Amino acid sequence: MISKKMQQQIKDGTVIRAMFQEGKAMAKEFGAENVYDFSLGNPMTPVPAEFNQAVIDAVKTETSLELHGYMDNAGYPETRQAVAEDLNRRFGTEFEGKHIVMTVGAAGALNVVFKTLLDPGDEVLAFAPYFGEYRGYVANHQGILREVQPDTETFQPDLADFEAKITESTKAVIINNPVNPTGVIYSAETIRKMADILRKKQEAYGKEIYLVSDEPYRELAYDGNEVPFLTKYYDNTFVTYSFSKSLSIPGERIGYIAACPKMADCSQAVSGLSVANRILGFVNAPSLMQKALVASMGAKTDVGYYDRNRQLIYGSLTELGFTCAKPQGAFYLWIKSPDAEEKKFVEAAKKYHLLLVGGTTFSCPGYVRLAYCVSYEMIQRSLPAFEKLAKEYHLA
Amino acid sequence: MISKKMQQQIKDGTVIRAMFQEGKAMAKEFGAENVYDFSLGNPMTPVPAEFNQAVIDAVKTETSLELHGYMDNAGYPETRQAVAEDLNRRFGTEFEGKHIVMTVGAAGALNVVFKTLLDPGDEVLAFAPYFGEYRGYVANHQGILREVQPDTETFQPDLADFEAKITESTKAVIINNPVNPTGVIYSAETIRKMADILRKKQEAYGKEIYLVSDEPYRELAYDGNEVPFLTKYYDNTFVTYSFSKSLSIPGERIGYIAACPKMADCSQAVSGLSVANRILGFVNAPSLMQKALVASMGAKTDVGYYDRNRQLIYGSLTELGFTCAKPQGAFYLWIKSPDAEEKKFVEAAKKYHLLLVGGTTFSCPGYVRLAYCVSYEMIQRSLPAFEKLAKEYHLA
Repeated sequence: MISKKMQQQIKDGTVIRAMFQEGKAMAKEFGAENVYDFSLGNPMTPVPAEFNQAVIDAVKTETSLELHGYMDNAGYPETRQAVAEDLNRRFGTEFEGKHIVMTVGAAGALNVVFKTLLDPGDEVLAFAPYFGEYRGYVANHQGILREVQPDTETFQPDLADFEAKITESTKAVIINNPVNPTGVIYSAETIRKMADILRKKQEAYGKEIYLVSDEPYRELAYDGNEVPFLTKYYDNTFVTYSFSKSLSIPGERIGYIAACPKMADCSQAVSGLSVANRILGFVNAPSLMQKALVASMGAKTDVGYYDRNRQLIYGSLTELGFTCAKPQGAFYLWIKSPDAEEKKFVEAAKKYHLLLVGGTTFSCPGYVRLAYCVSYEMIQRSLPAFEKLAKEYHLA
Repeated sequence: MISKKMQQQIKDGTVIRAMFQEGKAMAKEFGAENVYDFSLGNPMTPVPAEFNQAVIDAVKTETSLELHGYMDNAGYPETRQAVAEDLNRRFGTEFEGKHIVMTVGAAGALNVVFKTLLDPGDEVLAFAPYFGEYRGYVANHQGILREVQPDTETFQPDLADFEAKITESTKAVIINNPVNPTGVIYSAETIRKMADILRKKQEAYGKEIYLVSDEPYRELAYDGNEVPFLTKYYDNTFVTYSFSKSLSIPGERIGYIAACPKMADCSQAVSGLSVANRILGFVNAPSLMQKALVASMGAKTDVGYYDRNRQLIYGSLTELGFTCAKPQGAFYLWIKSPDAEEKKFVEAAKKYHLLLVGGTTFSCPGYVRLAYCVSYEMIQRSLPAFEKLAKEYHLA
């Protein structure tokens, strides 16, 4: 038998897999065009042509050893340098290549950071609602995830509860901005207050508390909203990033960690990240992708596509009487369940072939998440189904 | 401060990094052509042209979503199928795509297997000398690595000590064939006896004990030696593989796990592997590489290159009076230290600009490892230095 822990994790994962299977079965029964799967956050805009060209150019011009060989576990020096310069140009930061570690996506980056930071029993705070995978990432390294309760008015972090939940066991705080699942962006004001609390608690406990920022949706910000860059607010910060969304390449598994140059013992921390990258079995971020990035840094997929979807779905659903958090970034819409039991609402939606994910997955029951990284046409086709769902719940 | 565990791991990693830095410093002082770095196992033969062409073709012909998007955590169905068919064709096995999980290299594969199998305190046996990274891979998942003592006559596993060390806490046994660092191939005879012992112990303890085979060097076998395919000998077997060596693409991080169809609860085990791939932050093996593999399955770099190196270095060093295990596979030569203290021998070699790795790293003091995945010309240039080293130790 496999491990008891894994047997439990397989069971825990069953809900989303079951929905995936159900969606496939529905598509078979009713036709793919009549099933509206809003459950998955799979980017679907085209990869920028310059990125694909950079891949081809690298294969044609670089030697095998240079292109496909081992490099330092932290990545190619030129890729780390290119990331540092790109960040400095955009955010006025002062990164050097030595502060950047290239990773196997943001999921890899987060595991590398937690492996570097956590001793058994160390606590990591997360603001509900949050991406459920964080529970696994923290548990992988014997940390304990503690939840800060949601502020269901604004879906900004509840800073009073945050302050109350920091203890001398708190080693890190994870934030995700823009937020999956709410689509909200934590404001500069919020981040400033959060940083003040963290500094106060660091002093009170005489220890470092690290801010870990998960930012795969950074470029997906709408209506001129800005996503604060955290190293400007708090020194003990690791920014983790994935090119999955900005370049539409989630399958390639390429991202990075940027360690704030002013953090405590920064050079030791980066050594730790590099060792963790190796020991966890990533070894290094995929080499061809690292090379292609250097030549196409700054390339971006069409984020306007998601904005158009956002406006259509948010406008239509609020008009139908659904209560939604106003999405400012990412590609998710956070809908208040009109049913006291969110599970029943998810089931009711399925009757109309609408697939949504319940908020319990994100530690925030009573809500559902809709991923609008789908075709505009699918959203259009789905609207009559939402209308029927609204009628069933007697919404305005 | 980062975690105490990681601070220790950074210290533990210092020896090899120090050697790497020392090599660079020596190259600067004496000229790169006068420094003979045999310390790293970095493949250096060219990538097969058909593989690079398959990469370019995939980028030019596939849609973004299909080429760079998310797929099932276990990999693309066509890639899993292609691996299964390739194994069946070569080894007469009966894999289907559903028994294969694509991974981020063999290091990723091993971590995924251990995450799936181990509960805290479970023991994993490894045969000394072994690849030192296994210690970290097992510890990542709270397992305990126990060593089986080396048989310094043959460097085949010491099966008596193996049998004695299996306890009711034993969950898995890791073998690496051909072996890094000795270059020896465990014979079919050895594997058959090992499997008999395991079956006996499974029955005695009324539990499964898994064999985990790490096979990145499978294709590097010389003199007509065959590498036994383990699922034919023992049912509870996971074979982990990397294309790093056969295609010379270690930087790309692409490999797989093949779960023996006859293992206990195979379908649950594969579900576990898939969940582990996701939770550990790999999510999936890099997508473009998976696509390129389908079109170029069976492509192979020039392994004859390593064979030529092997003959030169083994022939020359034994002639100079060094005692070496006869290398049958991989690209390593295992040399008995003529100094009672291997560290002193490593230091003596450095005087002649020869960089070798001490056997203590592989839990087998008194030996050193030489990696001959270097240019033939470098080996030729290094021979006078070895001659001086042999003279210093008054070898025959």
